[in-house]
Amino acid sequence: MADIIIKNGYILTMDPSVDNIRNGVVVIEDGRITDVCEKTEEAADIVIDAQGSVVMPGFINTHTHAGMTLFRGYADDLALSDWLENHIWPAEAELTASDVYAGTRLACLEMIKSGTIAFADMYFFMDEVGKVVESSGLRAALSYGMIELWDEEKGKRELKEGKSFVNEWNGKADGRISAMYGPHAPNTCSKEFLMKVREQATEDNAKIHIHVLETEAELNQMKEQYGMCSVNMLDSIDFFGPDVLAAHCIWLSDGDMDILRNNNVNISHNPVSNMKLASGIAPVTKLLDRGANVCLGTDGCASNNNLGMFEEMKAAALLQKVDTMDPMALPARQVLEMGTVNGAKALDINSGMIRKGYNADVIIVDMNKAHLNPLYDVPSHLVYSAGSSDVRTTIVNGKVLMDDYRVVCMDEQKVIDEARDAAAELISRVDAKK
Amino acid sequence: MADIIIKNGYILTMDPSVDNIRNGVVVIEDGRITDVCEKTEEAADIVIDAQGSVVMPGFINTHTHAGMTLFRGYADDLALSDWLENHIWPAEAELTASDVYAGTRLACLEMIKSGTIAFADMYFFMDEVGKVVESSGLRAALSYGMIELWDEEKGKRELKEGKSFVNEWNGKADGRISAMYGPHAPNTCSKEFLMKVREQATEDNAKIHIHVLETEAELNQMKEQYGMCSVNMLDSIDFFGPDVLAAHCIWLSDGDMDILRNNNVNISHNPVSNMKLASGIAPVTKLLDRGANVCLGTDGCASNNNLGMFEEMKAAALLQKVDTMDPMALPARQVLEMGTVNGAKALDINSGMIRKGYNADVIIVDMNKAHLNPLYDVPSHLVYSAGSSDVRTTIVNGKVLMDDYRVVCMDEQKVIDEARDAAAELISRVDAKK
Repeated sequence: MADIIIKNGYILTMDPSVDNIRNGVVVIEDGRITDVCEKTEEAADIVIDAQGSVVMPGFINTHTHAGMTLFRGYADDLALSDWLENHIWPAEAELTASDVYAGTRLACLEMIKSGTIAFADMYFFMDEVGKVVESSGLRAALSYGMIELWDEEKGKRELKEGKSFVNEWNGKADGRISAMYGPHAPNTCSKEFLMKVREQATEDNAKIHIHVLETEAELNQMKEQYGMCSVNMLDSIDFFGPDVLAAHCIWLSDGDMDILRNNNVNISHNPVSNMKLASGIAPVTKLLDRGANVCLGTDGCASNNNLGMFEEMKAAALLQKVDTMDPMALPARQVLEMGTVNGAKALDINSGMIRKGYNADVIIVDMNKAHLNPLYDVPSHLVYSAGSSDVRTTIVNGKVLMDDYRVVCMDEQKVIDEARDAAAELISRVDAKK
Repeated sequence: MADIIIKNGYILTMDPSVDNIRNGVVVIEDGRITDVCEKTEEAADIVIDAQGSVVMPGFINTHTHAGMTLFRGYADDLALSDWLENHIWPAEAELTASDVYAGTRLACLEMIKSGTIAFADMYFFMDEVGKVVESSGLRAALSYGMIELWDEEKGKRELKEGKSFVNEWNGKADGRISAMYGPHAPNTCSKEFLMKVREQATEDNAKIHIHVLETEAELNQMKEQYGMCSVNMLDSIDFFGPDVLAAHCIWLSDGDMDILRNNNVNISHNPVSNMKLASGIAPVTKLLDRGANVCLGTDGCASNNNLGMFEEMKAAALLQKVDTMDPMALPARQVLEMGTVNGAKALDINSGMIRKGYNADVIIVDMNKAHLNPLYDVPSHLVYSAGSSDVRTTIVNGKVLMDDYRVVCMDEQKVIDEARDAAAELISRVDAKK
């Protein structure tokens, strides 16, 4: 007897080797997809009728700072330096472990509701993030964000903290959690520090999550300091590899793109944040044309301001089209791959497709809505018309986290209320210091 | 006794002369807002508790082709000429009056659900559109789209059709419907035809809705044909005035912007469509800086692919920020004005604000959601995090069209099913001709 059978849905496999099934069945057992077919005689503990819905792999958000959900809408429409120096940093200075716990729980709730099954996070108080992920049922690739700022002693402490997190959390929660090293960026960590991180990551068999060329300011700073850009500098110390997840990657030359591609670096594109902070437009089409693995991320809620992957997919497609002045750029099917298949590759998890043997990380999207009719082409509707609230069911590792719009893995109202209370207290502490 | 009292909500007035009210009351009688205050002793037939919600003016979508909702997702990610010549035009050639009726009903359903209270439409079979608007309870500024193509006889027929629509529908449905003249664009109608339209509109005291400089191709064609761009040509025939609604306005010179501003032309910005079709980026910030009235539109569902104004606001803000490389460009408050106040000005209706004496065109947005917490700043959440599905109640002209997520002015499932059936039949007719 299977654990879950989903029937009567349109199966969007995202598997290049298997066609979509107009009216199909997905069978789930022991956390895995055990069958994808037109009909089954099998029985299951839970039978889900997906009539009028699309059954597809859940989304993978490859760059966020979940704890920053407490700062959603706290400071918008500001110059970058004003935003960071006068708002975000003073608030982060007051953050406690329990704040990060409350903020990350709210983030996980929002992700479950909007169809995200895994996320890559970089922040601090990461033990709290680990606990939330463990209890929520989601998957995550977590990293403690190390900022060294050319201070050797600080660097030692940061690496120690990063290492201790990796050692404690890598592989936890039945393998749902992986732990990565998180050196913040090439312009906040010295070359020497980055070399040590690279070495340590290889030794611990852990991956690396880093911001790369998010701003033109970083590009200019690197050129001044090293006479070369971040990509060239990182390449010069053999930092890159398929175990590196590089967020943003906006200010790339053609040569930089070749380096990232040749080293199989995973690139997390964050179009909403990049537009909102006026960071620039990443050359996504060129990267994909080279065969680079480009996936999608929302960034934190201070610069988005939500964690919705439907919105991120649409923004990615629209931005490439207008930037290249080519309406055929980044079509719906390709941007769906970025949100699923490519994200799974970046986090090295067997998710991102509805495929026999893969993780049962499945979402059901309700298509019986005014804005999703009539229906000619499923990928097109998912990218250009659907929204976060169209996800009715979210299954991770074979466990139902949201069942027909009802979140079952946590008390939704309690999570919202606690985050609200934590934020109010946090901001009153920040204001008291002003 | 009042008709409706909305209490306990956060009142976002959008009225520059009246502060927002944290916990306030809106009183509605005979289709008008009769009081906006902190407390009332009045009674009403309907009392709505807006606890945890924002009470605000509904959105005004100033450029769409509602009937095209039948083509939602029918042809995406294509070159403009392929899209038009091989997909949209052949499909439009098969459209019947009842198709436009079904598509427009679906569009109205989607608009009501996503908080739009009025829209400006340009299409054909406009009697059907008028009937749908009349029965739906929405407001609309409708125009028959006249395409003359330098054919004098065709021009006469088109103008006759346009005039007959204006004469029949202007002021209908208790004033909820206004009828406009809809000459399609300066590159699909001759200068002589546009002069006639201008004259007729003035005579009939009707407004004009027209596409202007949506594409670079139009700019080039106009320069070749007239030795000047569309704005200069239209200005040379005294076409412009505060009764003109010009959609898109992407390829503008500084001089063009001055002309539009000095003639008080209303400019409908459609960022999602402009990005998706790779038409370009309208200079919205520059237009607003000049004091021009810039409002928002979704365009039709063949190029968006939905009618959501929340999404349109976010796209507008993000696109200006990244285009000008200034994160302070088009802040949340200003883009909210575009979606409400400026739209009302463009359609010349007393809506767009929660203000005593104004039309009771009010929406209630549910803020008790994971992605809308914590809450520091209401405009910021509305623009950067909210979505269409957060609208719980839509009131137009003092009549509740959607009550706590339940559409009461039409049978939602029937509207969806009928649009689906009409689309299937339409496409089978189109395919039969191939």
